[in-house]
Amino acid sequence: MVRILFPGSRIWDVSFIPLRPGSLSGPVAERSDAARNRERLLEAARKLVEECGADGLTMDRLAERAGVGKGTVFRRFGSRAGLMMTLLSDAEADFQGRFMFGPPPLGPGAPGLDRLIAFGAERIAFVLEYGDLARAADASIRNRFEVPAVVLWHRHIEFLLREEGMEADPWLMALSLSAILDPERLLYAVRVHGVTPERLAESWRELVTRVIRGS
Amino acid sequence: MVRILFPGSRIWDVSFIPLRPGSLSGPVAERSDAARNRERLLEAARKLVEECGADGLTMDRLAERAGVGKGTVFRRFGSRAGLMMTLLSDAEADFQGRFMFGPPPLGPGAPGLDRLIAFGAERIAFVLEYGDLARAADASIRNRFEVPAVVLWHRHIEFLLREEGMEADPWLMALSLSAILDPERLLYAVRVHGVTPERLAESWRELVTRVIRGS
Repeated sequence: MVRILFPGSRIWDVSFIPLRPGSLSGPVAERSDAARNRERLLEAARKLVEECGADGLTMDRLAERAGVGKGTVFRRFGSRAGLMMTLLSDAEADFQGRFMFGPPPLGPGAPGLDRLIAFGAERIAFVLEYGDLARAADASIRNRFEVPAVVLWHRHIEFLLREEGMEADPWLMALSLSAILDPERLLYAVRVHGVTPERLAESWRELVTRVIRGS
Repeated sequence: MVRILFPGSRIWDVSFIPLRPGSLSGPVAERSDAARNRERLLEAARKLVEECGADGLTMDRLAERAGVGKGTVFRRFGSRAGLMMTLLSDAEADFQGRFMFGPPPLGPGAPGLDRLIAFGAERIAFVLEYGDLARAADASIRNRFEVPAVVLWHRHIEFLLREEGMEADPWLMALSLSAILDPERLLYAVRVHGVTPERLAESWRELVTRVIRGS
């Protein structure tokens, strides 16, 4: 749990997605050969997902692809779900870093509305790249709205709404806007109805612009 | 499949939720004592859900409550999922009748924005009453966005947006607005964060008003 003070706002409890088990609190650094090993396994896993989708990512295939024993893969990630969570965590941490600390318009420095528009476009791209992985990892999660990353996205949207002077229940308005970026729904639009990511991003831009300007 | 011609619009393929198996197409009317029997069972089932929640509705309890044999309950509804679908179907058909043909502002006769506001408020109330049932029945459904009722709600919102002159991709805008009324999310707001139905309805009113007026 990391406490962040957004300028001009109240204190937020933000649960960061740890980059890897123990990376934020663990006192013992990974030995560099172990770290290299891990990165090599993750790289192979990412390639497998690219080629075969999340369903195609099995511990057997990963071991074979990476040229290591199956035991090594299990020792490193615990289980298939653990492997997926690790892949996702790396991607989430990267995404979080970009929208919280990266260059504008996604990061600080641009007006709230521009950041909101950029956030939607980037999340749509993120979901299209990692959606299946998230769905596979999600299966074991009790409440998908309590996932730290989801909570953080919600709060980020609320923060931008407040910055734009939204006084009409910004917390709940942010929850509603988050719903629009729900991975399952975005993937449904793309896969079942052939909606392009550009069209999704344009519709999000139109909607949040109306919400912020239309008071 | 029923074809409906909305005034001033194109033809829509609308899949109605059948009131009961065979009720729209079946040539054989239920004998009145069988119908009474069925209504009595459904009434008992509704009471059980009220008292114990959807999880508390079992075939055993229903038989006991209605004073009939367990075999009768199974013959009538096939399975627990079938019973839940029947309960839901009745409620959905009632709701559909009200928003498509009932009095304004929910039904025809009011301006599109007023109907949209009323639709959100009524759906929120509907979800709070039937959400658990929907969730229990949903477990077996492959794609929750393909449920006929969900498709119909989406199209109803799109129809109202078009009526209000929305030119910015009304189909996708309606899909986004539907997301906000997603049962799982509404129930999460109510149960985990103690949001009242009134607050949900007010936030929906604010949002759709901005979306329609804020071009």
